[in-house]
Amino acid sequence: MKSILLIGQSNMAGRGYLSEVPAIYNENIEMLRNGRWQMMAEPIHSDREVAGVGPAASFAAAWSQDHLAEKLGLIPCAEGGSSIDEWASDQVLSRHALSEAKFAMESSELIGILWHQGETDSLNGRYKEYAEKLKAVFEHFRQELGLPELPIIVGTLPTFLGKTGFGLSAVEFEEINQEIERVVSELENCYLVSAENLTANPDGIHINGESQRQFGIRYYEAFAKKTDIPTALGNEDEQLSKIYGRATTKNEKIYLLSRDFALGKLDYQKFIEKFTEITK
Amino acid sequence: MKSILLIGQSNMAGRGYLSEVPAIYNENIEMLRNGRWQMMAEPIHSDREVAGVGPAASFAAAWSQDHLAEKLGLIPCAEGGSSIDEWASDQVLSRHALSEAKFAMESSELIGILWHQGETDSLNGRYKEYAEKLKAVFEHFRQELGLPELPIIVGTLPTFLGKTGFGLSAVEFEEINQEIERVVSELENCYLVSAENLTANPDGIHINGESQRQFGIRYYEAFAKKTDIPTALGNEDEQLSKIYGRATTKNEKIYLLSRDFALGKLDYQKFIEKFTEITK
Repeated sequence: MKSILLIGQSNMAGRGYLSEVPAIYNENIEMLRNGRWQMMAEPIHSDREVAGVGPAASFAAAWSQDHLAEKLGLIPCAEGGSSIDEWASDQVLSRHALSEAKFAMESSELIGILWHQGETDSLNGRYKEYAEKLKAVFEHFRQELGLPELPIIVGTLPTFLGKTGFGLSAVEFEEINQEIERVVSELENCYLVSAENLTANPDGIHINGESQRQFGIRYYEAFAKKTDIPTALGNEDEQLSKIYGRATTKNEKIYLLSRDFALGKLDYQKFIEKFTEITK
Repeated sequence: MKSILLIGQSNMAGRGYLSEVPAIYNENIEMLRNGRWQMMAEPIHSDREVAGVGPAASFAAAWSQDHLAEKLGLIPCAEGGSSIDEWASDQVLSRHALSEAKFAMESSELIGILWHQGETDSLNGRYKEYAEKLKAVFEHFRQELGLPELPIIVGTLPTFLGKTGFGLSAVEFEEINQEIERVVSELENCYLVSAENLTANPDGIHINGESQRQFGIRYYEAFAKKTDIPTALGNEDEQLSKIYGRATTKNEKIYLLSRDFALGKLDYQKFIEKFTEITK
């Protein structure tokens, strides 16, 4: 089994509305819960009550299409609103994320980090020290994980920032993006993913559900090809159609049926009937 | 700040339907997220997609009424379906729960454990070795946390088990309850909480939302009075009315307004209007 560490702030944790996009269930995609693996169900993060769709689910689904016989586990450690300073080596967020990653590594091989952060640092000239701090975060994680060449995929900040709602204060996102690009170009095995053409929730700061699905496809393209993705891809929606159109397996059907029964959506007799039908 | 560790299986994690009971928000009640504290919002656990109402929210709300100037933090580490063997000292669940508790203890004083487990062990004569194993779990946690006298509050298994749905297999819940009672009576600072008159979800194994709220009141009564609660209390619903009737503070209003804005339930202009109204 392989695994991927998810760190950064809210747009990595995910705030896209679940009701806006088709769900992704895949028995080969799991998420870390209490140090163990469970089948992925969004929201993958639970950093806030408003956690929703992030880039990780479609990233994992795209990975899974290329690795049909393997499992991928997602390690959710992104934290809404966190600044780059809160990811310094002595801070709780990084110590906790490393702790979670080490639990995951007891039963998986960590093959990458997905990172998205910077909205909180897009003001008051913070960009001037951002590159140095970001580089230190990446180097610290690689060192502590004992994986000096671990691939790190880094999304840029969306261009809808600085305009409205909770995004209003992020006026220096272009400066932060320049610093992100610089760090990525300076580090080995570090790849950039463009946030071009992504759409915001009405709050003006969070990437919406549909755009997060597209963003995840770009993250996977960067990971798979080991290359920067400097613009939107042409075929994101086509790839998502393939993911959504995947046939549900027997195990997934049993999972979904059991979930619906636990939620009181059908009675026991109907549950048994459907269970028998699936497993016959 | 004080804190409470939540461990056990699904009925501690919570499977009551959130739609069934009034929500509890209280700026003095927090929950551990990424090693840090956030205001409590249910579900407190995220062990499974179906996580919902457990006993912890009403426990904390009752505690808060008696400690108006203090904060309480909840550490969610219960795991759906886990057996007593999966809580042995060398297992991931206990190692992970201890790791989470230690992050919490960097910024809080741990004052107790709430435990509920045993459904998974209510078959095949497992009760014969249950007491010994349960005792070992409690002793291990106290030792590793460096708190040999840490209060542990232990709920019994509900009498609706063994009858229908997912509860069908739990035929030896009465034997398990006898073993739980024995362990509690043998350990210092360990108190029993009766599951008398609790009602199940349609799945026949999970305590419903309303009953979980009552159960939490009983857990708090045992914790506060340092005594066993061998039957239902007479005044649970009265206590819950007081909790539900508590006036919402300014900080809680800002939290709820910001949440609704993030969820797209109101536009930015309306958000600003309401925000101005709350903070004027």
